[in-house]
Amino acid sequence: MRTRLPSSGQAGYLTESVGRKAPLGHDNVRVLVLGTGQMGSGIARRVTEKQGLELVAACARRTQRAGTDVGRAIGLGVDLGIRIVTDLNIAIEQTRPHVAIHATCSRLGDAMEEITTLLRQNVPVISIAEEMVYPAASSPAIAEELHRCAVKHGVAVLGTGINPGFVLDLLVITLTGVCTDIKSITAKRVNDLSPYGPSVLSSQGVGLSPESFDMGITNGTVVGHLGFAQSIHMIADALGWVIDRIDERRKPIISTVRRQTPFTIVEPGQVAGCFHTAVAYREGKPVIRLVHPQQVHPQLEGLETGDHIEIVGTPTVQLTGSPEIPGGQGTIALAINMIPRVLNATPGLHTMADLPVPAAMMDDARIFVSRGADKTRVKG
Amino acid sequence: MRTRLPSSGQAGYLTESVGRKAPLGHDNVRVLVLGTGQMGSGIARRVTEKQGLELVAACARRTQRAGTDVGRAIGLGVDLGIRIVTDLNIAIEQTRPHVAIHATCSRLGDAMEEITTLLRQNVPVISIAEEMVYPAASSPAIAEELHRCAVKHGVAVLGTGINPGFVLDLLVITLTGVCTDIKSITAKRVNDLSPYGPSVLSSQGVGLSPESFDMGITNGTVVGHLGFAQSIHMIADALGWVIDRIDERRKPIISTVRRQTPFTIVEPGQVAGCFHTAVAYREGKPVIRLVHPQQVHPQLEGLETGDHIEIVGTPTVQLTGSPEIPGGQGTIALAINMIPRVLNATPGLHTMADLPVPAAMMDDARIFVSRGADKTRVKG
Repeated sequence: MRTRLPSSGQAGYLTESVGRKAPLGHDNVRVLVLGTGQMGSGIARRVTEKQGLELVAACARRTQRAGTDVGRAIGLGVDLGIRIVTDLNIAIEQTRPHVAIHATCSRLGDAMEEITTLLRQNVPVISIAEEMVYPAASSPAIAEELHRCAVKHGVAVLGTGINPGFVLDLLVITLTGVCTDIKSITAKRVNDLSPYGPSVLSSQGVGLSPESFDMGITNGTVVGHLGFAQSIHMIADALGWVIDRIDERRKPIISTVRRQTPFTIVEPGQVAGCFHTAVAYREGKPVIRLVHPQQVHPQLEGLETGDHIEIVGTPTVQLTGSPEIPGGQGTIALAINMIPRVLNATPGLHTMADLPVPAAMMDDARIFVSRGADKTRVKG
Repeated sequence: MRTRLPSSGQAGYLTESVGRKAPLGHDNVRVLVLGTGQMGSGIARRVTEKQGLELVAACARRTQRAGTDVGRAIGLGVDLGIRIVTDLNIAIEQTRPHVAIHATCSRLGDAMEEITTLLRQNVPVISIAEEMVYPAASSPAIAEELHRCAVKHGVAVLGTGINPGFVLDLLVITLTGVCTDIKSITAKRVNDLSPYGPSVLSSQGVGLSPESFDMGITNGTVVGHLGFAQSIHMIADALGWVIDRIDERRKPIISTVRRQTPFTIVEPGQVAGCFHTAVAYREGKPVIRLVHPQQVHPQLEGLETGDHIEIVGTPTVQLTGSPEIPGGQGTIALAINMIPRVLNATPGLHTMADLPVPAAMMDDARIFVSRGADKTRVKG
């Protein structure tokens, strides 16, 4: 059921360079990546691999990255002829991207300047900042500003990622589609932090004493999971529930065994991670419960990693996957796979729940852009 | 993040009667239900229960149903003051529905006249006919005709249901969204046919001898699952795969124990159901494998019912739910929950993969219609 390809000049986004990998005779989708950390680099690498996508610019916040060839910076081991820049406006003007993927930060306030700079230059944005998955959860005013800015400049903006953005919200919402009534929702994600570096580990209190963990919670250095409010409000909005309040709790996961990763050693009695839960109340009753214990090597204490969703209602539905969907790979895939959805969306702020579902792009990325509703052909 | 309500006269679909259950001061969504069998009745009952929806007409194919009060016919035990009619054109003209739910048949050819009658009178359609889930799988020509007709008359048309329509296709596609590469997909649904009546049981060969089962396959009285081609083409289209061919196999599930339901008794050595599989090939290699054994009381031979999806790729992802999502309840919920999606969709033929995901409607149905992309508020 492949539909019409966008012909050059027809779709607004495809009007410029002749693509390097363009067997179809159409321009590549020109991608600007913002952020050259672990996620930004992974996304940029994927853009360079994917037929139909073209990495045209990479921006970093850290000035020491400026001037480095992006191919080296993201670990390709070869020069790509694109130098990392720190001035986003110049990057946009010089490269005229069709879409930007934003991977520099987690917080809305921290992301706004970069995102609105892109929108004001008519560049659609996909952000993996956790708070961008449902911006109104942290600031309705900023969400409204984002929406107005995107509408004014005729482009779409979306937040995505594995969590928030998929496992504990989009997947939950999708499953509720088979229900006529719902009493409560519980979703749990048990993951293993051992692949992660020092900044993630310290944000979860890994390696601390129980006392230092509690102090970290108090002074804000131990944060646990960032995204519960976003997931809860996305679910509640999709279902039409009004949430009274959200009760979040963070407790130390105290190890009984030695757990070691390249970046930390957790001795028995020390903290292996953060057991973070959030319960959302509606009319005084708990209706959404999200559970996300994050730690290094949970299997050393016999704990299996995995994703689990249970919806108690008519009918009751539950789904389990083990091990958990990998966070880094999943987030990179979602950011890339949502490109056609965002390019095809109406202008404005979107969430994962109000666009068509993502799908792996197993063909040239341009094929998936500007497909009409003409579902009249089978493939093959 | 509730957004603007449609104000009367603003949204084209809300212009007529004053609703019976309209606390918000807006018209109910007027629903015509086509079909008064098990599914049609269940859908009609749900419409009468759901705030914001109003059952305005019920059409049956069987003339002996004509004139019966729909409340009695669908098992409510009370009159609703709406008599079942057999003339669809008259029903449309007299009741001016905002949307129709079509539940009279499984095959595209059989559904076309009713669906195009609705579309030509500018009524959006949600069909639970299996072949409507991806019409091009059985006839690209009919799919194109449907699409053109819907576009011409400015309304959307969608096929949905638990399977095809959700478990073995939409849910699979959604999960591929976290992948950058896919080698193969396997999805399996093991269900229990014991709640079903004689027509479903005979279509699966339940109670036959193995020889009669084989004869039934040959003469077309035993059909197994209807929907594999639809699910496969929906997945392939979403991923951009070209399918060379689909190989379907139906084998008898021969019982070793006695299995009894209100409608049949299966003795040891007789057929308890149909083990139906479909394998789709791409470039000569099997890439999608769908498995759907349907039988009465599988647990009597130690077999657990459930839904299982495995995507082998980058990353490999698997999800399992047990027992299976109930087919009848799930199909009814999906038909109802897709109403706002279809009313908000662009005119034309749609599939479950190109509209936003369904969600349980836990508030007045009208709230979910004509919500803009203004995601700037949190609920509560």
